[in-house]
Amino acid sequence: MEMNIALLPGDGIGPEVIDQAVKVVKAVGQKFGHQINFTEGVVGAAAIDATGEPYPDSTHEVAAASDAVLFGAIGDPKYDNDPKAKVRPEQGLLLMRQKLGLFANVRPTFTFPSLVHKSPLKLERVEGVDFVFFRELTGGVYFGEPRGRNEQGTKAFDTNMYSKEEITRLARMGFEAAQKRRKLLTCVDKANVMATSRLWRETVQELAPEYPDVKVEYEFVDAVAMRLIQWPKAYDVLITENLFGDILTDEASVISGSMGLMPSASLGTSIKLFEPIHGSYPQAAGKDIANPLATVLSAAMMFEYAFDLKEEAQAISDVVNLSLSEGYATEDIADGGPSYKTSEVGDWLAAKILA
Amino acid sequence: MEMNIALLPGDGIGPEVIDQAVKVVKAVGQKFGHQINFTEGVVGAAAIDATGEPYPDSTHEVAAASDAVLFGAIGDPKYDNDPKAKVRPEQGLLLMRQKLGLFANVRPTFTFPSLVHKSPLKLERVEGVDFVFFRELTGGVYFGEPRGRNEQGTKAFDTNMYSKEEITRLARMGFEAAQKRRKLLTCVDKANVMATSRLWRETVQELAPEYPDVKVEYEFVDAVAMRLIQWPKAYDVLITENLFGDILTDEASVISGSMGLMPSASLGTSIKLFEPIHGSYPQAAGKDIANPLATVLSAAMMFEYAFDLKEEAQAISDVVNLSLSEGYATEDIADGGPSYKTSEVGDWLAAKILA
Ligand SMILES: CC(C)[C@H](C(=O)O)[C@@H](O)C(=O)O
Ligand SMILES: CC(C)[C@H](C(=O)O)[C@@H](O)C(=O)O
Repeated sequence: MEMNIALLPGDGIGPEVIDQAVKVVKAVGQKFGHQINFTEGVVGAAAIDATGEPYPDSTHEVAAASDAVLFGAIGDPKYDNDPKAKVRPEQGLLLMRQKLGLFANVRPTFTFPSLVHKSPLKLERVEGVDFVFFRELTGGVYFGEPRGRNEQGTKAFDTNMYSKEEITRLARMGFEAAQKRRKLLTCVDKANVMATSRLWRETVQELAPEYPDVKVEYEFVDAVAMRLIQWPKAYDVLITENLFGDILTDEASVISGSMGLMPSASLGTSIKLFEPIHGSYPQAAGKDIANPLATVLSAAMMFEYAFDLKEEAQAISDVVNLSLSEGYATEDIADGGPSYKTSEVGDWLAAKILA
Repeated sequence: MEMNIALLPGDGIGPEVIDQAVKVVKAVGQKFGHQINFTEGVVGAAAIDATGEPYPDSTHEVAAASDAVLFGAIGDPKYDNDPKAKVRPEQGLLLMRQKLGLFANVRPTFTFPSLVHKSPLKLERVEGVDFVFFRELTGGVYFGEPRGRNEQGTKAFDTNMYSKEEITRLARMGFEAAQKRRKLLTCVDKANVMATSRLWRETVQELAPEYPDVKVEYEFVDAVAMRLIQWPKAYDVLITENLFGDILTDEASVISGSMGLMPSASLGTSIKLFEPIHGSYPQAAGKDIANPLATVLSAAMMFEYAFDLKEEAQAISDVVNLSLSEGYATEDIADGGPSYKTSEVGDWLAAKILA
């Protein structure tokens, strides 16, 4: 198969971890006989520095022409404490999501037996956790208008907005995923307060009869924020709006103890994008110490979700598991034992795939 | 001292737990020589059933004329899955907060040594946790206009809105609390996405020089959702807007393992209200099994915050600690050992205060 993959490394540790994913993807291509073409684009602070724009048209063209996008991370602290900055790296991320139509962010949470002891939660609560969030990614308060300030600058406002269509397409993905899993769907909203949430709940209620094999539960976002920590095993598939998804998927990411390993996919009408859920981790940038496994596992998701190549995806998961069981890992998971550089881990994984 | 206390038991287990707090408050009054007058009002589903309104004027008059309000809980599942219901119990809560001007919800999270083993988190992460949230309670998306649907009903929208004044008065409370504690203030926002959050951050940045002894940190809400579980001891005072506060304070409530014991205060320009942070727990209503300690400790907060009576507050905390160490507690904290009814715990506490 021929595949055109756009690489958008972004900021901070983004470039380093993308480099390792590329090594692994190339090795898979070589082993399974695929021709893989890479094209690169800048995004985020890196793009502002280079072009003045956080998601330049040239990058969008690269991404839109590709079969799949591998994305690193975005964000630079020099922009964070300047609330008046006109251009911010995050705008690049939002523009990218919007222009590529990536309306569903899929974030699995699962455990690696060799890492579960790193969870802040007690073993019995977290062992065997396996749920997946479908977060709406191109609507809600992230894009709603009007937003801004009054003339004197003494009042600020944002608009949260959802249409039935936006909710329906995301919810259907959740229902379908639930059908292939444990058949439990949790709709997370704040229907006791927000008009948008009431439309979410109503829309999901209307869809439910089409999926009679799926049990649907409706929970308020504040309750889920509690129960995710108390009883994370109770969940299977969760669907939610953009902002709630932002908060809850990050909360979920620390549950398994393997935050540095969690991949994600952003799906839409055509293009599919894959990225680690960790951020740009600026303190580690350029030091060759960042854990590349989340990005490598995102590449595995890419083979499965974008190209329907399950064997290739499995080959990547297998070497990642091997690296964990053999302790060939970066310092964040080495537990004080011998550890390896970001680039060494990438080389090792690629070599094992070809071995 | 003469004190006029309004009792708003609300729904579910509200009436039962308020009953126990009343026993304890009466005992304190008797012991310390205060004359305490109680007046009752209906609110929530109970009020809808009785009057058609979730926060009737008669209840508001009772609350507004009081020196302090003791509130139980609100919410009835019969309203939850009916997104089209015109009147909802929660509206009573929101109206009450708004009409009483309760703009700051103060929620401490701390541990009880005898209960910390119940935390879903590992002991070393949670032992000694001690932070407090100041959640803005009368603004944001809970009250912003416009909100609703388009004519066809296919689109819904909510408005989040904050003024500098609203942010300032809440932030000042946080700064002042931090000065009396460990001098660390965390401003929680989503300034990389939301206009309201940028006003929050800007306003807090402008106030910070007035409190030079307080170290201020700015963190995104998604990062806090993670770090609250990973490193809960890192926090001291957190300030945030209404919706983020709703989610994060509920998340925080399960950290200590003593959710059934966590009290809260809602403060404003005049009236002060005190309530347990747990909900109406309808499954337990009427069974005399609900844990009354959070409400009893809310009454302790009332003596301290509303009447500046620290000794009285301490007397209540002391008997609560005694009940825990002697195992005179409801089944949720009895660990399979002998347990006592809600009403028995209330009687016991009141008797111990007078002993
Ligand atoms: C960087 C930020 C704008 C972004 C978001 O809020 O969506 C991030 O937190 C994420 O979850 O991808
Ligand atoms: C019941 C609901 C409207 C309320 C809120 O969201 O404020 C509750 O969750 C709370 O935190 O007191």
